[in-house]
Amino acid sequence: MILDKVNFPKDLKNLTIDEMNTLSDEMRCLIIKKVNVTGGHMGPNLGIIEATIAMHYVFNSPVDKFVFDVSHQCYPHKILTGRKEGFTDPDKYLKYTGYTAPEESEYDIFKVGHTSTSVSLATGLAKARDLKNEKYNVVALIGDGSLSGGEAFEGFDNAADLNSNIIVVVNDNDMSIAENHGGLYRNLKLLKETKGKAECNYFKSLGFDYLYVEDGNNIEQLINAFKQVKDIDHPVVVHIHTIKGHGLPVAEEQKEAFHWILPGTLDEVTEAKEFVEDYNSVTNEFIMKKAKEDSSLIVINPATPGVHGFSPEFRKKLGKQYTDVGIAEEHAIAYSSALAKAGAKPILAIMTSFVQRTYDQLSQDLCLNNSPLTMLVYWGGLSNGDATHLGSFDIPLISNIPNMVYLAPTNKEEYLAMLEYSYSQNERPVAIRVPNIPLESTGVKDDTDYSILNKFKVVKRGKKVAILGLGNFLNLAKDVSSEIKTKLDIDATLINPVYMTGLDEELLDSLKKDHDIVITLEDGILDGGFGEKIARYYGNSDMKVLNFGGKKEFTDRVPIEELYTRYHLTKELILDDVKKIL
Amino acid sequence: MILDKVNFPKDLKNLTIDEMNTLSDEMRCLIIKKVNVTGGHMGPNLGIIEATIAMHYVFNSPVDKFVFDVSHQCYPHKILTGRKEGFTDPDKYLKYTGYTAPEESEYDIFKVGHTSTSVSLATGLAKARDLKNEKYNVVALIGDGSLSGGEAFEGFDNAADLNSNIIVVVNDNDMSIAENHGGLYRNLKLLKETKGKAECNYFKSLGFDYLYVEDGNNIEQLINAFKQVKDIDHPVVVHIHTIKGHGLPVAEEQKEAFHWILPGTLDEVTEAKEFVEDYNSVTNEFIMKKAKEDSSLIVINPATPGVHGFSPEFRKKLGKQYTDVGIAEEHAIAYSSALAKAGAKPILAIMTSFVQRTYDQLSQDLCLNNSPLTMLVYWGGLSNGDATHLGSFDIPLISNIPNMVYLAPTNKEEYLAMLEYSYSQNERPVAIRVPNIPLESTGVKDDTDYSILNKFKVVKRGKKVAILGLGNFLNLAKDVSSEIKTKLDIDATLINPVYMTGLDEELLDSLKKDHDIVITLEDGILDGGFGEKIARYYGNSDMKVLNFGGKKEFTDRVPIEELYTRYHLTKELILDDVKKIL
Repeated sequence: MILDKVNFPKDLKNLTIDEMNTLSDEMRCLIIKKVNVTGGHMGPNLGIIEATIAMHYVFNSPVDKFVFDVSHQCYPHKILTGRKEGFTDPDKYLKYTGYTAPEESEYDIFKVGHTSTSVSLATGLAKARDLKNEKYNVVALIGDGSLSGGEAFEGFDNAADLNSNIIVVVNDNDMSIAENHGGLYRNLKLLKETKGKAECNYFKSLGFDYLYVEDGNNIEQLINAFKQVKDIDHPVVVHIHTIKGHGLPVAEEQKEAFHWILPGTLDEVTEAKEFVEDYNSVTNEFIMKKAKEDSSLIVINPATPGVHGFSPEFRKKLGKQYTDVGIAEEHAIAYSSALAKAGAKPILAIMTSFVQRTYDQLSQDLCLNNSPLTMLVYWGGLSNGDATHLGSFDIPLISNIPNMVYLAPTNKEEYLAMLEYSYSQNERPVAIRVPNIPLESTGVKDDTDYSILNKFKVVKRGKKVAILGLGNFLNLAKDVSSEIKTKLDIDATLINPVYMTGLDEELLDSLKKDHDIVITLEDGILDGGFGEKIARYYGNSDMKVLNFGGKKEFTDRVPIEELYTRYHLTKELILDDVKKIL
Repeated sequence: MILDKVNFPKDLKNLTIDEMNTLSDEMRCLIIKKVNVTGGHMGPNLGIIEATIAMHYVFNSPVDKFVFDVSHQCYPHKILTGRKEGFTDPDKYLKYTGYTAPEESEYDIFKVGHTSTSVSLATGLAKARDLKNEKYNVVALIGDGSLSGGEAFEGFDNAADLNSNIIVVVNDNDMSIAENHGGLYRNLKLLKETKGKAECNYFKSLGFDYLYVEDGNNIEQLINAFKQVKDIDHPVVVHIHTIKGHGLPVAEEQKEAFHWILPGTLDEVTEAKEFVEDYNSVTNEFIMKKAKEDSSLIVINPATPGVHGFSPEFRKKLGKQYTDVGIAEEHAIAYSSALAKAGAKPILAIMTSFVQRTYDQLSQDLCLNNSPLTMLVYWGGLSNGDATHLGSFDIPLISNIPNMVYLAPTNKEEYLAMLEYSYSQNERPVAIRVPNIPLESTGVKDDTDYSILNKFKVVKRGKKVAILGLGNFLNLAKDVSSEIKTKLDIDATLINPVYMTGLDEELLDSLKKDHDIVITLEDGILDGGFGEKIARYYGNSDMKVLNFGGKKEFTDRVPIEELYTRYHLTKELILDDVKKIL
């Protein structure tokens, strides 16, 4: 094995092209095997092996700085920078994260997981280098649809003012997570068709020099290109045409499905899975029904259809009633707001972690204009996820914007009733936090009038203690209520607050007469969240308020049970805290 | 006067070119006269009079939809759409806002004040039109540097997928608020030099058709161009070359100074003003001193140098140690984070209202990476400003992000000590809310060690009542303290919390033994802010907490005294609230 002798970039320097080709095959086998066990980004990494080898062969990392966009394509880089064991030793498969991580290696500069940041970050590195009169190459690797994010454009635009070394490798594999969208990708197509010769060139229009590599999976071609641009004295794009999923036929064919896979995907016998109703299927059934009734219904999604179960068939059925705006969350909000303003019925589906990319558009383009958008927010809540993709910040982010209504359903029927309310009203933006827990059904249609804002639901009236269990955590509230009954013989009041954007002051006031303690439970960080509003409301009264939720911190792949213990989000720990003030 | 007969767009339709030229002169006089009285955007409006007349002549608004980017150039549009009195009648000068406002007129579709949104919004309108099988033109007008914002790029990119009518008028006046920056503006220059004929064309690379108008202040040329694109069936850019400040020599010469002017600017005798020290001058003195000592100090600003007192001379002196990234706040943060990571000493100056455009970059690019950036946040606090430019949301936005330290200085010496701390440390991002009240000086150097995080300052130890006066509101806290002494004979404890991102738990605990009430005062909305954290902390205790601050709402040009009364932010009203719970 060539790989036996390769642990760091220096070990590449004396290899022949043939040896490097062998090395790429060996790395490919390792990545396929490991990702099939652990799950992870398959297609992006298989497509970039050759380029990563060529980059490390030509450049002198870590003196030369590599910045990986999203950094979900850094597996080959990790293999070549001292972290091979994470791919060769099954016991160490989970030792390293799936993203660049400075705490792991000096070859990683930034902790990255969101898209479209690499050109900006590289521009900053290059400018610092120039200010300090240092000399090294700064190389950004961007692809997989990240070019459509506004931050990438801003980076390109400003980088051109550097007038010094910055090299942006554009990994063009013809895909985003799903297919590419937008005018820019037509230009990339034109550039590929003309072998880079077309005069109309997005990168040149932004002041970059430009080089095209026909076969971005050919190490020799890549090395030649990188040698040409090494130590260059001005901004240059190296546009490499690669194959997503390269070398794994099923990943080359099913590019979207193999962008990111679950463990065991390659082993699965392809038999029809039994249908299990979940929030995705319920949502999509609602959408399809309404879309047939009203041709102005339109679903908007920023490049994450898989998250929402928007299958290729679903998207095809919706046809022009579906817009994948690409990775462009800011536009997604402004566009949706305008759709609503002009009388269409927009439903936007977005992940919690990516809502973060569009605060100002939520505030200015949407809420200030009171456009009746239905925004479905997925994957909100504490999780064992990567620090880059946490879903625990959305309540502070969204619910403190004026005019917004942010709802927390707790079961299928509530969710559907909220969807119906939001879809049919014409007054204001409504966001719904799609539960990220298994779907529960009451079997009974919910006829709540959600247009009466900020009316909390009393699930059970008791006394002394009231428990407000928000969204995902209503079940925990029920458990706490039982625990309090069992251990303290108190019949607690149980409340489903429903609204994260306002308080039911009448209800809260009514609790004062026969309650001493109010407990709030929320599946997100406490800072700026729901519980603090309750604490503020009761601040001038004798009511004790205990807020339970996450701490303001970036957690990184911490098991969820550990987080629940850390934050006292178990019935036992909550009971202990209640006892202390009884 | 031609204008006497013109109240709505229909009144233009039978005018000759000569009459329209006369009309533009008449409108120019009105705008100059009014803006000189009220203050406002001078240059942008003077440059766009002819284009506005031509748009309303050719298109059929409000059936055809106009979207103004930033909408600070909508004065001519307002004159032509039923709101002439706001320019002819001094008593009505303040009746209409300086931005598009749907509540004023059906000719205005969106309430807009931030940049780079028009293409996205127009794309949504166009898509809704297509879904509903309606037929009208959608026209976006963008210029003054707004093209560099990522949201504009995202809009262009997605608009190309419409394959139907959308017309983007690019008002190219060679300027942003200050001079333009970035590679894109070189392409605009090339396009102008080649009279639109250069093949390398940013707009074409994004899939737009393209038309160039040599003299964007020539009504006849504009009408011909607009007639060519009216009812077009695909996306097109009309690139018009205008003169910012057209027709007012001093505004044509001093384009930056006359972008937005204070009342009376044209009347002022140009004599040297007496120097008055303020937070801008103190900041800039600090920067200049440090910049000389360390060539890796760099000031970053997203296109608002005037706000910070970064005069042309100041910028010139800093030279390569100053980057105006253009209107590109997302990039500003990522770029700054990387500068810090690579060992430079970045100081970013940004307005509260525009921090909103970069939440995700603050979270992911900056705070997750713990880059030691000094971020100076200007104009934070309640104000009588437009709904689009409020400074009251920054505390919830910034202070709930992990790893961030957000400081609230209350006088010159504190501010300087915080600047020094932030600049010299290498541990974490530090944001400082530059006070937006007149500078106060103690005359005594502040030797607080701000690296000991979350240590509140006790200004005066008392008992029963503790008052936490954050930043701008420490003075109000002092007044409340006096009022409480006078009226209730209570010696209140007075605290300057300093840190908005964490609590001094030791101090808060110590108050429990001899205090019954804690009052918090913050210059921003309460929801998600500082006071709620205090309320949460005391939730399990007997301490009463009263939070004072703004309500979660978009206020629009409401006099500040009215807001203070509305929110109980006066010593008398606070005393009343305290009395209720004593």
